[in-house]
Amino acid sequence: MKIENPFFKKSKNIYLSDIFKVLKIKKLKERKKINDINDLSNSEKGDLSFFNSLKYLDQLKNTKAEYILTELKYKNIVQSYCKPIVVDNIFKSVSLVTLLFYPGSLDDTVDFNVYPPKKKNYNKVAFGKNVLVGKKVKIGVNTIIGHNTIIESNVSIGRNCLIGNNVLIKNCIIGNNVRILDCAVIGKKGFGFFPITNNNKRYPHIGMVIVEDNVEIGCNNTIDRGSISDTFIGKNTFIDNQVHIAHNVTIGKNCIITGQVGFAGSSSIGDNVQIGGQAGISGHLKIGSNVQIAGGSGVIKNIPDNSKVMGYPAKDIRNFLKENK
Amino acid sequence: MKIENPFFKKSKNIYLSDIFKVLKIKKLKERKKINDINDLSNSEKGDLSFFNSLKYLDQLKNTKAEYILTELKYKNIVQSYCKPIVVDNIFKSVSLVTLLFYPGSLDDTVDFNVYPPKKKNYNKVAFGKNVLVGKKVKIGVNTIIGHNTIIESNVSIGRNCLIGNNVLIKNCIIGNNVRILDCAVIGKKGFGFFPITNNNKRYPHIGMVIVEDNVEIGCNNTIDRGSISDTFIGKNTFIDNQVHIAHNVTIGKNCIITGQVGFAGSSSIGDNVQIGGQAGISGHLKIGSNVQIAGGSGVIKNIPDNSKVMGYPAKDIRNFLKENK
Amino acid sequence: MKIENPFFKKSKNIYLSDIFKVLKIKKLKERKKINDINDLSNSEKGDLSFFNSLKYLDQLKNTKAEYILTELKYKNIVQSYCKPIVVDNIFKSVSLVTLLFYPGSLDDTVDFNVYPPKKKNYNKVAFGKNVLVGKKVKIGVNTIIGHNTIIESNVSIGRNCLIGNNVLIKNCIIGNNVRILDCAVIGKKGFGFFPITNNNKRYPHIGMVIVEDNVEIGCNNTIDRGSISDTFIGKNTFIDNQVHIAHNVTIGKNCIITGQVGFAGSSSIGDNVQIGGQAGISGHLKIGSNVQIAGGSGVIKNIPDNSKVMGYPAKDIRNFLKENK
Repeated sequence: MKIENPFFKKSKNIYLSDIFKVLKIKKLKERKKINDINDLSNSEKGDLSFFNSLKYLDQLKNTKAEYILTELKYKNIVQSYCKPIVVDNIFKSVSLVTLLFYPGSLDDTVDFNVYPPKKKNYNKVAFGKNVLVGKKVKIGVNTIIGHNTIIESNVSIGRNCLIGNNVLIKNCIIGNNVRILDCAVIGKKGFGFFPITNNNKRYPHIGMVIVEDNVEIGCNNTIDRGSISDTFIGKNTFIDNQVHIAHNVTIGKNCIITGQVGFAGSSSIGDNVQIGGQAGISGHLKIGSNVQIAGGSGVIKNIPDNSKVMGYPAKDIRNFLKENK
Repeated sequence: MKIENPFFKKSKNIYLSDIFKVLKIKKLKERKKINDINDLSNSEKGDLSFFNSLKYLDQLKNTKAEYILTELKYKNIVQSYCKPIVVDNIFKSVSLVTLLFYPGSLDDTVDFNVYPPKKKNYNKVAFGKNVLVGKKVKIGVNTIIGHNTIIESNVSIGRNCLIGNNVLIKNCIIGNNVRILDCAVIGKKGFGFFPITNNNKRYPHIGMVIVEDNVEIGCNNTIDRGSISDTFIGKNTFIDNQVHIAHNVTIGKNCIITGQVGFAGSSSIGDNVQIGGQAGISGHLKIGSNVQIAGGSGVIKNIPDNSKVMGYPAKDIRNFLKENK
Repeated sequence: MKIENPFFKKSKNIYLSDIFKVLKIKKLKERKKINDINDLSNSEKGDLSFFNSLKYLDQLKNTKAEYILTELKYKNIVQSYCKPIVVDNIFKSVSLVTLLFYPGSLDDTVDFNVYPPKKKNYNKVAFGKNVLVGKKVKIGVNTIIGHNTIIESNVSIGRNCLIGNNVLIKNCIIGNNVRILDCAVIGKKGFGFFPITNNNKRYPHIGMVIVEDNVEIGCNNTIDRGSISDTFIGKNTFIDNQVHIAHNVTIGKNCIITGQVGFAGSSSIGDNVQIGGQAGISGHLKIGSNVQIAGGSGVIKNIPDNSKVMGYPAKDIRNFLKENK
């Protein structure tokens, strides 16, 4: 089920000609209206998407998007399924088009619409002291919000949750029975930008953080929201202290992630995965289900289901331990 | 000297029959009263304890506990010294009995009994702005408490301490001349639970964090309290920023622990140990005294006194450097 | 251009005889006035400095300092350029003399001079709720300060900056267009002390943190100020979440530093350096410009310009990947 994103205001009436204009593509005036920008899987009819690697071929075949930003080398593949728009730099183009649709998505600014909550607006919610809550925040019954915590506008929190002290939450949809421990920072924009000498250009982030039921998120965690798609933590996954989860990471159900683990952007982790302390997962990887990653490992390639790995770079744990006796 | 634990309210009048009931052991009604649950070393006469590994044989021989939760394979050993209660899963059984004695120990909830301190109740204590202090908190003379800091109920802090800004302290007994720097989070429950698909069961934590005199704890540290026994930081140990110390870890005197080091649960560290930045110590290890662990090392087995180690897995530093020239 | 340090009050009228007294050097009474203590590069005429390694020989040759604290083995070298003062332990002596000049530099205490800002004192600055600002703080136009953030006395922040929520800043000079994200802690003293059994002696820290224009500093970063010289982040450098930067580290322009990286004290990093997640840089190293350090690497020696390294210890990335196929 698709979860509606209430956090970023979309411009209405964007036409293909507007998109060509920001991309500096000279074409005849196109009155075709484009509805939104999205990744291949989540695009709806009338949306624009992008294709940047053959590993997303299956998604391309099944996408509902009509127009696809891509590079020249993928033009032929793309036009078997959709209408390609050829650009030099896909991500820069995605960034420009995202900004066109969501002009407020670049600045990850402070929410000045937060105030001490009016308790009558929340049924059976216990608030600590100095709590600040934004506009249109939803909080379910029997949820506890700790002292000094800030819940920014449009965030939704389910029933029976425990949110600790000094927690900061923005751009986030949280299920039921979730625990978010002290000082976690959830939903800020990811570490994405185009490096330009003396003047890096930040990348817009219109994704959310989705946290499913019964998740536990430890102290001092930092979980960034996605750029186009969402950062996702599956049901009953437990995360220890000081873990960093970058933008667009998706973590499955029933995972156990111990202290000081770090995930670089856009990696996907299966179900029932166990990761030992201080392990690091590089970006854009696919970690299967039932995988065990030993503490301190550095994972730099995909790991199939049911594997146990250790080492830097991580390899089969039996080989690693044999070589390191 | 045993430090009294003021943090968790103990149920009175627990009988052996009540314990058999939660463990689903069918026995004749036993009117024997049990006083408390504790580890082998700290048990008093009339307490119940547990034995789960031969490495604790010495403690078993010397324990004052009368009844011992254990598995079938240890039954014969245990009954040479105490009365065994045989169970399938020791830790689950310990968890159930702990909850029986301390029904409030499972939920690590927000302390709603914290208020701005009445300065007349504290002699020569300097409080910053927006400080919140719980019930029955003790703070010694000449101690400074920084802005936005929360000291939860029953915490005790000694003389001449400096507690920084945004610090969160619960379930913790702190000595004199201790410095706790900004944003440290001390005393929350550890990352302990029984994994159950879609519904992990949390482990009760009735231990404290004991911080001895002249300790320094860095910014953004997370130090979890113990499950049954206490997490312990010995006299004059200095800890840098972003260090994570899991439940039941004990660290000796005069240790130097640099930034981003992580300790998994229940490891014990000797005196005068120096640990370089980003090193990780696995769980349930014994690190001797005067040990030096190089930065970035991953320690996965016990280390004897006076060793210098480096690498992942950590080994003798001369061998590591020779192999990695 | 030298940036004036407004944070530590200097004692006036310190004479060479006062310095000899704290160093327990018996000499005839010297009425020579000494102006300040500084490192070799930043010393002015009339200052005292120190020389502790041949790698600073060039700085020694060019220093404007008149007197130099050094050890016996460097006496002959030093006296070719300056007047040596021979001591047993250079750093302990520097510490004692620093305290003599800056008696308030040892205690890194809470700033009790912070108050809710008077908005009329700041032109076009947007303040969140519960912000505390110290004395003589400068904040440029169009800067935003998030909720619960504390800006301590004498800090200077430029134009168009975004300071997030729960940020703590002290002893810091910040340029224009800088972003400091939620919960960063900037400017506390470094992890420096003389280990003494049961009573470690802290090292004074009179350095600042200098943050140049267009820098981004991530959530939960800890950036310590320098001991004698400053900690420095160059123009347009972007830093991800949970990064630790120890005292006296200098980072050049246009660097990209990803999550959970750690820098030990006094290392210098060139321009255009990219460092992957969880990498660690040991202390007192020189990392050249245009260097790429792969995620998870442990760097323990200097790295020349334009190198790509990986591994622990870090080596040429092609060799590392070849050996670890």
